[in-house]
Amino acid sequence: MKTVGLFPNLLKKNSARVANVIINWFQEKNYRVLLPDNAIKALDNTSSRLENGEIFDKIDIAVTLGGDGTLLNLARQLAPYEVPILGINMGHMGFLTEIELPDLYRDLELFVENKYFIDTRMMLEAQVVREKHILEKFITLNDAVVTKGPFARLIRLKVFSNGAYIDTYPSDGLIISTPTGSTAYSLSAGGPIINPDMELLLLTPICPHTLRSRSIVLSKDDIIKIQVIAEHPDTMLTVDGQQGYRLLPGDEVIVKKSDYRTRLIRIKKRSFYDVLRKKLTEVNFKE
Amino acid sequence: MKTVGLFPNLLKKNSARVANVIINWFQEKNYRVLLPDNAIKALDNTSSRLENGEIFDKIDIAVTLGGDGTLLNLARQLAPYEVPILGINMGHMGFLTEIELPDLYRDLELFVENKYFIDTRMMLEAQVVREKHILEKFITLNDAVVTKGPFARLIRLKVFSNGAYIDTYPSDGLIISTPTGSTAYSLSAGGPIINPDMELLLLTPICPHTLRSRSIVLSKDDIIKIQVIAEHPDTMLTVDGQQGYRLLPGDEVIVKKSDYRTRLIRIKKRSFYDVLRKKLTEVNFKE
Amino acid sequence: MKTVGLFPNLLKKNSARVANVIINWFQEKNYRVLLPDNAIKALDNTSSRLENGEIFDKIDIAVTLGGDGTLLNLARQLAPYEVPILGINMGHMGFLTEIELPDLYRDLELFVENKYFIDTRMMLEAQVVREKHILEKFITLNDAVVTKGPFARLIRLKVFSNGAYIDTYPSDGLIISTPTGSTAYSLSAGGPIINPDMELLLLTPICPHTLRSRSIVLSKDDIIKIQVIAEHPDTMLTVDGQQGYRLLPGDEVIVKKSDYRTRLIRIKKRSFYDVLRKKLTEVNFKE
Amino acid sequence: MKTVGLFPNLLKKNSARVANVIINWFQEKNYRVLLPDNAIKALDNTSSRLENGEIFDKIDIAVTLGGDGTLLNLARQLAPYEVPILGINMGHMGFLTEIELPDLYRDLELFVENKYFIDTRMMLEAQVVREKHILEKFITLNDAVVTKGPFARLIRLKVFSNGAYIDTYPSDGLIISTPTGSTAYSLSAGGPIINPDMELLLLTPICPHTLRSRSIVLSKDDIIKIQVIAEHPDTMLTVDGQQGYRLLPGDEVIVKKSDYRTRLIRIKKRSFYDVLRKKLTEVNFKE
Repeated sequence: MKTVGLFPNLLKKNSARVANVIINWFQEKNYRVLLPDNAIKALDNTSSRLENGEIFDKIDIAVTLGGDGTLLNLARQLAPYEVPILGINMGHMGFLTEIELPDLYRDLELFVENKYFIDTRMMLEAQVVREKHILEKFITLNDAVVTKGPFARLIRLKVFSNGAYIDTYPSDGLIISTPTGSTAYSLSAGGPIINPDMELLLLTPICPHTLRSRSIVLSKDDIIKIQVIAEHPDTMLTVDGQQGYRLLPGDEVIVKKSDYRTRLIRIKKRSFYDVLRKKLTEVNFKE
Repeated sequence: MKTVGLFPNLLKKNSARVANVIINWFQEKNYRVLLPDNAIKALDNTSSRLENGEIFDKIDIAVTLGGDGTLLNLARQLAPYEVPILGINMGHMGFLTEIELPDLYRDLELFVENKYFIDTRMMLEAQVVREKHILEKFITLNDAVVTKGPFARLIRLKVFSNGAYIDTYPSDGLIISTPTGSTAYSLSAGGPIINPDMELLLLTPICPHTLRSRSIVLSKDDIIKIQVIAEHPDTMLTVDGQQGYRLLPGDEVIVKKSDYRTRLIRIKKRSFYDVLRKKLTEVNFKE
Repeated sequence: MKTVGLFPNLLKKNSARVANVIINWFQEKNYRVLLPDNAIKALDNTSSRLENGEIFDKIDIAVTLGGDGTLLNLARQLAPYEVPILGINMGHMGFLTEIELPDLYRDLELFVENKYFIDTRMMLEAQVVREKHILEKFITLNDAVVTKGPFARLIRLKVFSNGAYIDTYPSDGLIISTPTGSTAYSLSAGGPIINPDMELLLLTPICPHTLRSRSIVLSKDDIIKIQVIAEHPDTMLTVDGQQGYRLLPGDEVIVKKSDYRTRLIRIKKRSFYDVLRKKLTEVNFKE
Repeated sequence: MKTVGLFPNLLKKNSARVANVIINWFQEKNYRVLLPDNAIKALDNTSSRLENGEIFDKIDIAVTLGGDGTLLNLARQLAPYEVPILGINMGHMGFLTEIELPDLYRDLELFVENKYFIDTRMMLEAQVVREKHILEKFITLNDAVVTKGPFARLIRLKVFSNGAYIDTYPSDGLIISTPTGSTAYSLSAGGPIINPDMELLLLTPICPHTLRSRSIVLSKDDIIKIQVIAEHPDTMLTVDGQQGYRLLPGDEVIVKKSDYRTRLIRIKKRSFYDVLRKKLTEVNFKE
């Protein structure tokens, strides 16, 4: 019997109702359904209580209910488990989620009939290094972003690729993104769009105070080092716009391709460009 | 007898030494020299102790010793007093400072011979309005900037001009700048360059999440209203990148032309474009 | 009896039919209607045959039937006659045209009841100077554009404002636009949006080979001089994207505010920003 | 005995003199030196007269004397022969040329001692297809560019990748570039910088009339098809900015990775980023 982990974004309207529908649907198809602790409470569900971390190695697929942000958040946590993710969308069309609610039953049916394929996405690993010690490691699907704090007038980010000096960016910050992340924060900062099937690193400065700064595309094998030159201790490393870590002057952030990948379940042969054209004319392409 | 206020940036190397040279020079020319409290201490000067605010209505001209930031900081405080400012530069060439150290004596001599003109610059007034009450007013020479805090994922700024709706910017923030400020933060965010002799308002979004956002140039008589739509109480209003004020969701920032102007003393008929070409090829155009 | 000049774009589908409707409508209101020569033929109209130039000083208002391009084309010719223009739109929503076809009768009615106002737009004058002789003068509502020909590898445009050197642009070309023209070609080339009520000059380089090039906003009183430094004799001056003039290496183009203005008849108090938001999300903002 | 082909750009000042120096130097090292026909005449050289095409399959290495443009021009012609190219620079520092004149003897010495490595660069193949027939094929090292002619008001380029529709660009044109070409025309048009060691395709629209257009990075294996939708028969395909081909409305341009590569001889372990920082602060980064 296959096991599904269901991860609803309980802040989304109707998500509890739709979650119960999905639980029933999978159970009728003889799937076991596991829920994270917070969802069990919210849904009045009687499943055995499990922490997120306990669920991850018990499930064969993960289903998210919410938007791209919900999926992004799970993808980071799930990365080491190699579990494919099926995103059910409850808001604006997304780059990552796959099933729109009106197609819910039809698409789930196709899924259980194995009529799907896996869309594998490169991830990043970001390490915080202080005085030669790795203090923290993050896995990220979209981007690792170093930004100045609100009270800093100036931050300088000195950037190296495989030890070779690239440049020093006096700026509001710097984005290192995957192809998947190229349509997120990097796009707001003026970066190019990368076909998400590719594997490469994209470096985009945020409001650089030097006109010679442009986005740079680097090899997936390049190891990027960012040295923080700042006066104030309020520089931040932010991962997928969701997790933060406070950096001190002199800290280094090392960003490289992760050994992990996100596996997105795709039911339709949807073209990236079809989604792109639609998203880019939306009032907010990050929703 | 004319009175000079001397405002040195004591963080700049050698500024105390140069300040003493300037004090002596002016005193020999029969000028009275007043110093702010902090400078009196640092320079071991025996002048009568005065707070900044007490100096401002006693002086005929203000002399700054430092960079553009030093002058900017004084210009805001001095705005209501209509006192012209002479900037003596101690770092990279600036847009605002006038005298380079190698030309110090020659240029001061020209100044006391009245061989100078006044370069008048438009300023902005920014008001913070909460529940229809004006909580705070700022005068600014470069810009008034509303930015999201480090923990906010999303901020929306709804902007009006004279009551007419312009647009809602899902973004990292928004810059309202004077022509003088067009070569500061606005330029980093992709804005155009404005000849500083002009009087107009420049609106530049910071990392907008919508491709339809571009800088907009408005009339000097337009009154801009920015409504903060945010979930987190950590939005900031920053004035000339130097003074901050924490905004709450629902707050409004009203920006309009100030009744005050900055008066810059110009000794040389230096072209704005000559300075511009040089600054834009510098590694950091904001220094 | 007031006289209307009707200028239909005969390439637009249905324009002949709509033109006849408008002619009848105005004649019933006791207006005299004059048509340019080419329209008389196309409409099988028996009005007296007049060249464009003969019509202009006989009419009180001009009505265009087509898009912004149709109005733009007439505005240049009509500039010296101070005749206001009423644009009836037959395509995508425009920045210049005023009446949409579904509102035709209602809006024409408001017009003849004098319920309208005049929206005055600054124009430019562009002169071609060769060996100190003015060879040609153009009036333009949107922009004067100097571009390299298809076979030139490199063109350099050396630009001055009131004799002061601005910069030399190695580029594909340079746009000098009015506020009205800021949403046309200049926007494609990365320029800012200018509220069309303003009077100023906007300089935007086209694909500059130097990262220090940005749009520059100048005073309406500035006189811009562009010197063409090129090897091939195929540089072009183009006016409103509609009229061209071949430039030779060494030629100068002088651009300044025209003494003429375009007078647009406005029936609705339509906000520029409402039109802007709509146009910028269109697939092609120049249509 | 090894054979060197020497290709001087005779338009560069002193190139004839330096060419003779290089010929003598190689002959003394027991290399045979071949010259193209035009150079033989210009140098008063008595070598056997050969057309370019005849030289290419007789040489072991090609030496260019001039700038990046000289090398680019040869690289296209030499592509099928797999002959490595050594660029001797006679102007501004280049991205492609290797030896600066002051280091000429030292670097040539290192070369003949085999102290060099080969920097392999991806190239593109661009085909012109009219009514299903391939009319022409080009090999290109920097880019294949489709641009509107000077008299066309509007061109629309409908673009596909492997048959999947990307978008239709109403614009001045479209650049498909290699990583090597990312620092050439594409950079002027707002494109990102690509590390030239990578293999991928970069699509950058030129002055698009739609704000949703951004540079797109695609896989090296993608086959791009551009359909020309235009009214005027003056659209151009330009290859490396050096060779042109007139396109008709309805023509298709197919661009894909070439089977050929350019082999650049590198003597110094020069970092791409070191060159980049220097070039981007130059007044013209394409020189």
